[in-house]
Amino acid sequence: MAAEIVNPRSDSASGNTDQDGGAEPLDSFDPVFALHRGGKMAVQATVPIRDKDDLSLAYTPGVARVCTAIAEQPELVNDYTWKSSVVAVVTDGTAVLGLGDIGPEASLPVMEGKAILFKQFGGVDAVPIALACTDVDEIVETVVRLAPSFGGVNLEDISAPRCFEIERKLQERLDIPVFHDDQHGTAVVTLAALRNAARLSRREIGQLRAVISGAGAAGVAIAKMLVEAGIGDVALADRKGIISADRDDLTAVKREVAGFTNKAGLKGTLEDALAGADVFIGVSGGTVPEEAVASMAEGAFVFAMANPNPEVHPDVAHKYAAVVATGRSDFPNQINNVLAFPGIFAGALQVRASRITEGMKIAAAEALASVVGDDLAADYVIPSPFDERVAPAVTAAVAAAARAEGVARR
Amino acid sequence: MAAEIVNPRSDSASGNTDQDGGAEPLDSFDPVFALHRGGKMAVQATVPIRDKDDLSLAYTPGVARVCTAIAEQPELVNDYTWKSSVVAVVTDGTAVLGLGDIGPEASLPVMEGKAILFKQFGGVDAVPIALACTDVDEIVETVVRLAPSFGGVNLEDISAPRCFEIERKLQERLDIPVFHDDQHGTAVVTLAALRNAARLSRREIGQLRAVISGAGAAGVAIAKMLVEAGIGDVALADRKGIISADRDDLTAVKREVAGFTNKAGLKGTLEDALAGADVFIGVSGGTVPEEAVASMAEGAFVFAMANPNPEVHPDVAHKYAAVVATGRSDFPNQINNVLAFPGIFAGALQVRASRITEGMKIAAAEALASVVGDDLAADYVIPSPFDERVAPAVTAAVAAAARAEGVARR
Repeated sequence: MAAEIVNPRSDSASGNTDQDGGAEPLDSFDPVFALHRGGKMAVQATVPIRDKDDLSLAYTPGVARVCTAIAEQPELVNDYTWKSSVVAVVTDGTAVLGLGDIGPEASLPVMEGKAILFKQFGGVDAVPIALACTDVDEIVETVVRLAPSFGGVNLEDISAPRCFEIERKLQERLDIPVFHDDQHGTAVVTLAALRNAARLSRREIGQLRAVISGAGAAGVAIAKMLVEAGIGDVALADRKGIISADRDDLTAVKREVAGFTNKAGLKGTLEDALAGADVFIGVSGGTVPEEAVASMAEGAFVFAMANPNPEVHPDVAHKYAAVVATGRSDFPNQINNVLAFPGIFAGALQVRASRITEGMKIAAAEALASVVGDDLAADYVIPSPFDERVAPAVTAAVAAAARAEGVARR
Repeated sequence: MAAEIVNPRSDSASGNTDQDGGAEPLDSFDPVFALHRGGKMAVQATVPIRDKDDLSLAYTPGVARVCTAIAEQPELVNDYTWKSSVVAVVTDGTAVLGLGDIGPEASLPVMEGKAILFKQFGGVDAVPIALACTDVDEIVETVVRLAPSFGGVNLEDISAPRCFEIERKLQERLDIPVFHDDQHGTAVVTLAALRNAARLSRREIGQLRAVISGAGAAGVAIAKMLVEAGIGDVALADRKGIISADRDDLTAVKREVAGFTNKAGLKGTLEDALAGADVFIGVSGGTVPEEAVASMAEGAFVFAMANPNPEVHPDVAHKYAAVVATGRSDFPNQINNVLAFPGIFAGALQVRASRITEGMKIAAAEALASVVGDDLAADYVIPSPFDERVAPAVTAAVAAAARAEGVARR
C-alpha cells in the first residue's frame, strides 16, 4: 500500500521544509502550536482494501448494488453508509470562544477540537464545516443542501441572535437532529449541576429563584431549560439590566424571554436581581461585585461560568455560597459542555431520532446528575469530563427519551 | 476514556437489533452489504485527549491561541488545521457509476469508497459531501461556502454538461484545486496507457489518429488531453455520429470540441471514423461491431473502457489490435482512475497548489507511464492500482509540475 508514504501534511514528505514560510518558530515557543501542526484529526477506512477483490466489494462493481438498494429503499442509507454516525460541526466563525467574529478559517482549530471530542467521548464521527457566509438564509440553505451526507448537525460559535433563527429554520426543514451546543449543551450541564446542588441542600428546584447574567445563546437556553425543569423563578440580565416586559429596547428573542421569565416583575440592575436570589448563573463575562454576592439568600449557589475569568472568583463566592461552580478545569465543579454533547448526539443517532426534544435534553441532564450519585458534595455536584460513566449514561437516557417521545426511528 | 463504548453505528450498543427493520437479510445474502454495514470510514483524532492537560492544549483555553494566530496570519490555517490535507468529495448524485441520477443519499456508498481510496492510495483525507441540489449555480454557491474547511474539491458523478460549467465556475472562484475526476482522472490514465502503447510500438503520439466513442465528461476530457499531448488527430463520436463543426445539433461543449478535434473533417458514423484509425477509446457503453475493429489500421490500440461491458470484448479486440485495455480488473491493462486521483491531489496539496493545471495532469500521466519502465509489454502498458510505486511517483511529478508552473504556494 502507498498509504502513509505521501501524506501531504508531512513536512518531510515535501523535502522543502525550508520553504515553509517561518511557521516552525511558533511550534518551539508554544506547545499548543506544536500539537496543532497538521491538524488534530484524520479520516480512516474501516474496511480493508488490500487487493482487487477488496476493491470490487468496497468500490466498483460491488458498491453499485448498495447504491441501487438505497435508491429503492432510502432509509437503508443509515445502515450501509456512515451517514447515521457522522455529525457536521457547522460554524460561520462569528462568535468563536471569547474571540468573537474571527471568520471561518480561524475557527477551524475549535471545530476540529469539537470533532475529536465527539469521537473521543461519544464515539461519534464529526466533520468541521466552517462556512464562508454569515447571512441566516444562506447558512440555512447551505446546511439543508449538505444534510444528505450527515446524521446530525451541531451548530457552533454562531453569534446571537442569528443562531436562534438558524437553528429554528434548520429544525423545521430537516428530519435529523440540529443542536446548537452553545445554547443547549451549556443548559443541560447547568441544569445537572443545579439539580445536584439542590439535592445536596435538600431543596426542590421549584423553591429556587435564579438570576442569569448574560442573555446571549447560553443565557437564553439556560433560562428556557430551567423553566422547563420547574424553577421557581428566573430572571435574566443583559448589559442594560433585568429583562422585563416593559423594556422598550428588547430584541425579538429577549421579548420572548421576558414572556416566560421574571414572574416577580423585577426591574433594575443585575445587582438588584441578586438581592435575596438563591442561584447566580454567569454566562456574560462581566464581573459581579462582592456586595451583590453577599446580598444573595443563605446557602446560595454561584455558577460563575465565564472563561477564563469567572464573574465571581471562586474564593470570593465561597465566602457566601453553599455551592460554587465555574467553567474552568482548575477549580472543582467545572460546567463543561463536553459532558453533554457527545452523549446527546450518540443517543440521538443510535435511535435515529428525527430531532432532539426538550425531554431528551432534560433526560441528559438527569443522567449526568445521577452519575455523581452518593458521592455528592459541595465540591462535587457535576462529574469530571473524564469520568467514563458519563457518555454511556447520557447516551442511554437520551435514546430512551427519544423512544418515549416518539421521535426515534429504530 | 468513553471512546468505543457508545459507538452509535454498532447495533449491539443499542440493544435493539430486533427493531432494525429487516436490513440484515441483505447482509447474509450478499457480502457487499455485510461489508458496507455501518459505512466504510470513520474520523480519528491524531492527538491525545487523556486528561485535562491534553484538553487544555487541544481545546480550550489553548486552542484560542491558534485561532488568534490564524486570524492574524490567514495562511497559517494550512499549518495548524487539517485543511491542507482534506478534500471534499462533492456530488449531486446525478450520474453515479452507470446507474444515472439516483440522488445524493444513494450516491454516498460511492463517495465513501472514493474517500477511502484517497486515504489508502494517497494519504489524503477526504469527506463525502452529497448535495441535495442539482442547479449549477446552487452547487457552485454551496461549494464556495464550504471551501474554507477544505484544501481541495474533487467533483464526482455529476452529469454532463453541467459538470463542465460547475468545474469552470468553481475554478474561477476558489484558490484551491477543483478537479472533476470523471473527466481528468480518466484522461490522465488513458494518456499514460497511450504513451506506453506508443512506446511499445515505437511510434510517436503525433503519428496517431484516435477515435473516441462517447462525448460526455470523460470523452471530452480525454480529447482535450490528447490534443494537449500532441496527438496526430482525434475525433469524437456521440450517439448521432462523428462530431464536426457543420453539425447543427451540438451543445455548447460539443461545439467547442468540434473546434479543436477532427482536423481531418470526418463525417458519418463511429464506424466511418474507425476505418484506418490507430486508436479506439471507448467511454460510451455502446457496442462496436467486429467489422469496425477489423477496419482499423495495422497494430491498432483498443481501449474499451465501458464497465461492466467493454465496447469491444477483449477476445475480439485481440484479433486485430496490438494493445488492448479495458476498465475491468479481470483483464490486463485496467484503465482505473485510482491510479491518478490520489497522487494528483497528494501532490497538489503537498505544495498547496492553487489549482491543477494541464501541465500537472500531463506530468501525472508521464509519471504513471514511467512506472511500467522496462517491463513494458502488450499486456502491461499501465501499472496495477496496487503497485506501491504509483502514488509516490504521481505525487512527486505533480508537485514538481506545480512548482514549475508557478501555482505552488510552498
